[in-house]
Amino acid sequence: MHFADRLLHACRKKGNALCAGIDPRWDQLPLDIRNRHAGGTLGAMASAIEEFSLRVLDIVAPLVPIIKPQSAFFEACGPAGMLAQQRVLQKARSLGLITILDNKRGDIATTAEAYADAALAGTHWNGHRHEVWSADALTINPYLGRDAVEPFLASARKCGGGVFVLVRTSNKGAKQFQDLNCDGKPLYQHVAEAVGEWAAENLGACGLGDVGAVVGATHPAELAAVRHWLPHVVFLVPGYGAQGGSAADTAGAFRADGAAAVINSSRGLTACFKPDEVQWESAVERATRAAIHDLTQSTLMKALKG
Amino acid sequence: MHFADRLLHACRKKGNALCAGIDPRWDQLPLDIRNRHAGGTLGAMASAIEEFSLRVLDIVAPLVPIIKPQSAFFEACGPAGMLAQQRVLQKARSLGLITILDNKRGDIATTAEAYADAALAGTHWNGHRHEVWSADALTINPYLGRDAVEPFLASARKCGGGVFVLVRTSNKGAKQFQDLNCDGKPLYQHVAEAVGEWAAENLGACGLGDVGAVVGATHPAELAAVRHWLPHVVFLVPGYGAQGGSAADTAGAFRADGAAAVINSSRGLTACFKPDEVQWESAVERATRAAIHDLTQSTLMKALKG
Repeated sequence: MHFADRLLHACRKKGNALCAGIDPRWDQLPLDIRNRHAGGTLGAMASAIEEFSLRVLDIVAPLVPIIKPQSAFFEACGPAGMLAQQRVLQKARSLGLITILDNKRGDIATTAEAYADAALAGTHWNGHRHEVWSADALTINPYLGRDAVEPFLASARKCGGGVFVLVRTSNKGAKQFQDLNCDGKPLYQHVAEAVGEWAAENLGACGLGDVGAVVGATHPAELAAVRHWLPHVVFLVPGYGAQGGSAADTAGAFRADGAAAVINSSRGLTACFKPDEVQWESAVERATRAAIHDLTQSTLMKALKG
Repeated sequence: MHFADRLLHACRKKGNALCAGIDPRWDQLPLDIRNRHAGGTLGAMASAIEEFSLRVLDIVAPLVPIIKPQSAFFEACGPAGMLAQQRVLQKARSLGLITILDNKRGDIATTAEAYADAALAGTHWNGHRHEVWSADALTINPYLGRDAVEPFLASARKCGGGVFVLVRTSNKGAKQFQDLNCDGKPLYQHVAEAVGEWAAENLGACGLGDVGAVVGATHPAELAAVRHWLPHVVFLVPGYGAQGGSAADTAGAFRADGAAAVINSSRGLTACFKPDEVQWESAVERATRAAIHDLTQSTLMKALKG
């Protein structure tokens, strides 16, 4: 089944398009979990972020359609952290969640192929397929150009997966290169137009492609512009919540039927409590419900409930 | 000690600036190694690429100053592959080699910090420092702008490490975005100028900064242009050898004293034999010596022999 159709199906089933970002930073974990994994090794740290992430999945799985683990926090714990990343993705899939591995890869030729197959279709070896991260989608960086993007598209298209390309990122300094005026239009528009072409190569029944665009909620004018250029592209929108973007700032990302946008919140959900809060799981649940309510009130996401 | 000074010292000690790229692709490994790790699991695959990589280190360590493991091929084997990556980097350091982890990271804020500390200064947790990959330098992608690069510089400057920023990559499609005309000059020139500023913030005694530029040997004209703009920046030059760049194509990367360039060869060294070649280690040694000879004949690298 096509990635965009699977994504839309999952969003309709849950009645929203909120993505729970899983960003397990050690110093934001509940004290209870930190204390039980206090061995002082990277392995103990990995166990702690794994336990926290798995418990968050149990909380958010009945509420949201999508999760996005931030690979950097798993990698910070070394090989044991990467094992935790693998287990978190496995559990998310078993809970029926769509998974976006946020690892922002980008390389060329067979190197890109190795990253792509690790994230999506699986590493092939002696004619056998081995699942590595087995996410439904990953994030990638466009700087190296189409031939470097190609292996990611190929891997996604082998397994009904998706690729989200960085177009206009949510950080303050994004404009340094992304807004440069290139032959009369900003660089991010050139990247957006390329994403539009790549997405058009493989549209799902819902009219959306399997190549998405990352566009930050912290730049609502740019978000609306990119939506205008790319009606057939799914947007992954970071920057809502802790990074300062409001629900109204994300409104321009949606299609009239509520499709075509995935709004991510990471710290707003998983770091919404003080470390010594005993009832942190209730706090995560409340924050998740509140974000869904907030987005439903302010955007066309409400159409997904239909 | 400053990264550029350490790098130059290592190059002078070996009399060359060849970087051995460690790209362990399963289907290019010696049959002997493949057969002994034929368990059919990712763990077995990881053991095979680890054994191969460690044996390559023993061969190249007396000859070259620098190695560059390509993270994608380790990641393709999952968590076990990342453990292999860690061990390869550990052994390289113990052999006195300068290590450049080629993982092309790029993200924002605390996420970038997590990647940076994993690669360079170590993950900090409860006041303790934990080594993760502990490379001397890593490669990063500039698309997200200075504030996203900042955490990598900070981590490097904590530990005398370095950062190599993608400027003009070696793939054919690099020009799609990197050559766009932005306000009268190509995008890669904007990136190069930013790299020049970042490098100037922290120069070593040798006059070179701790922020380097990745510029492909497959584009000799662009390589010479970037060298002209950035006299104080170390270049990491991929594309020599298997990708088509000749020794003469890399000549523009060097300073008169042979410093400021690191020429990488990956497949040219580590996939220079047929898988059934029993004497593959001799072949790797011969190929490494031949590359050093070739570069010494055609470039100012010869000045390193002093």
